[in-house]
Amino acid sequence: MRDAFHDELDSIGQTLIEMGNLVSTAVQLATTALLTADLKLAEQVISNDLRIDTMQHELDAKTLTLLARQQPVAGDLRTLITSLRMSADLERMGDLAHHIAKVARMRYPSAAVPAELVMTVQEMGDVLTRIIQKTTHVIETHDLESAVQLEKDDDEMDKLHRKLFLILLDDAWPHGIETAIDMTLLGRYYERCADHAVSVCRRVYFLVTGEYASEQA
Amino acid sequence: MRDAFHDELDSIGQTLIEMGNLVSTAVQLATTALLTADLKLAEQVISNDLRIDTMQHELDAKTLTLLARQQPVAGDLRTLITSLRMSADLERMGDLAHHIAKVARMRYPSAAVPAELVMTVQEMGDVLTRIIQKTTHVIETHDLESAVQLEKDDDEMDKLHRKLFLILLDDAWPHGIETAIDMTLLGRYYERCADHAVSVCRRVYFLVTGEYASEQA
Repeated sequence: MRDAFHDELDSIGQTLIEMGNLVSTAVQLATTALLTADLKLAEQVISNDLRIDTMQHELDAKTLTLLARQQPVAGDLRTLITSLRMSADLERMGDLAHHIAKVARMRYPSAAVPAELVMTVQEMGDVLTRIIQKTTHVIETHDLESAVQLEKDDDEMDKLHRKLFLILLDDAWPHGIETAIDMTLLGRYYERCADHAVSVCRRVYFLVTGEYASEQA
Repeated sequence: MRDAFHDELDSIGQTLIEMGNLVSTAVQLATTALLTADLKLAEQVISNDLRIDTMQHELDAKTLTLLARQQPVAGDLRTLITSLRMSADLERMGDLAHHIAKVARMRYPSAAVPAELVMTVQEMGDVLTRIIQKTTHVIETHDLESAVQLEKDDDEMDKLHRKLFLILLDDAWPHGIETAIDMTLLGRYYERCADHAVSVCRRVYFLVTGEYASEQA
C-alpha cells in the first residue's frame, strides 16, 4: 500500500513538471504571437490553456483523495500541500500566458507591440521562459541553488519592466493611450508570471529545508 | 481531544473573518487615500498589510500542524485545505489594497486620479468594499445564496473596469501617458481583488456542497 502511495506522489510530481513545460511553451508561443501578429499561434495558446486548467483540477482532486485516504504525515504531507500550492501558481502562470496571447488576438492584424518596444518585450519573453524552465528543473530536482538563483533572474525581469515604463514615458512616445494601456498590461502579465515562478521555487525550498528562503539571497 | 480540535477549527474560521475585515478596511482607506491624496492614510494601509501577511503565515502554520497531528478526514480535512486556499486569496487581496495605497503615495502631493475618473474609481472602491464585506459574511455564515450572488457584484466591477478604459481612450483625454499607466494598473488592482473575492466564495460553495458553483449563476 505504501508503495502505491509513493507511486502516486511521483505521478503528482510528474504532472507538476508537465505543467511547467506547458507553461514555458505557452509563454514562448504567446510572445512570438504577440511580436509577429500571428493569430493562429495566439489561438493555439488560448485553447491550450484549458489543458493546463484541467491538469490542475485533476492534480488537486488526486491530491485531496490521497490526503483523505492515506493520512500522510511529515514529509509526505508537506509534499502534498506544497503540490496543491505549486499547481495553483502554475495554473495562474498559464492564465497570464493566455492573457498575453489575447492581447495579440485583440490587435490582429496589427502588431500589438510598437517597434520601440519589440526588443524589450522579446527580452521579457526570453527571461520569463528561462525562469520557467529553471523552475521546472527545481520542481524536478529540488536543486536549492537554482531555487535561490531564480530571485536574481526575477531582478532582471523587474529591470526590463522598469525599462518598458521608461520607454512609454519618454516625451517622444508617439503611440497614444491605447498602446500605452496594452503595454502596461503586458508588462504586468510578464512580471506577475515571473513572481509566481519565484513563489514555486520558494515553496520547493521550504519543502526541502522546512525554512523560508531569504528574500535577499 | 476532538473538542480541542474543533476549537482550533473555529479559531481558524475566526482568523479568516478577521482577515476579511482587515482587507475590506484596507480597500476603503486605500481608495480614500487615492482620491484625496492623503499620504498618512496611504502609509497606514501600507504598514497594516504586514499584519495581514503575518496572520496568513500564522494561520497556515496552525493549519499544517492540525493536518499533521489530527489527520482529519472528510469535512474537517476539506475545511483545513479550503482555509489554506482562502487565506492565500485574502493575503493577495491585502497586497492589492497595498498596491493601490502605493500609487497614492507615489503621486503625493498630487492626486493620482484625475477629475474625469474620480467617480468611477470611487464606485470601484465602493463595489469592491461591498464585495469583500459579502465575502466575509459568506466565510462566516456559509450562506450559499450570497456566495452565488457575488458573481453578479463582480459583473458590476467588470462594467466599471470597462468604463474606466472608455474614459482613458476618449480622444479628449488630456492627461498623458503617466496618468494612463497609473489608471490602467489601478483598474487592474481593483478588478483582480474582486476576482479573488469571487474565488473565496467559490471555495466556500465547494466546501459546503462538494460541487463547483456554476460560473453562469
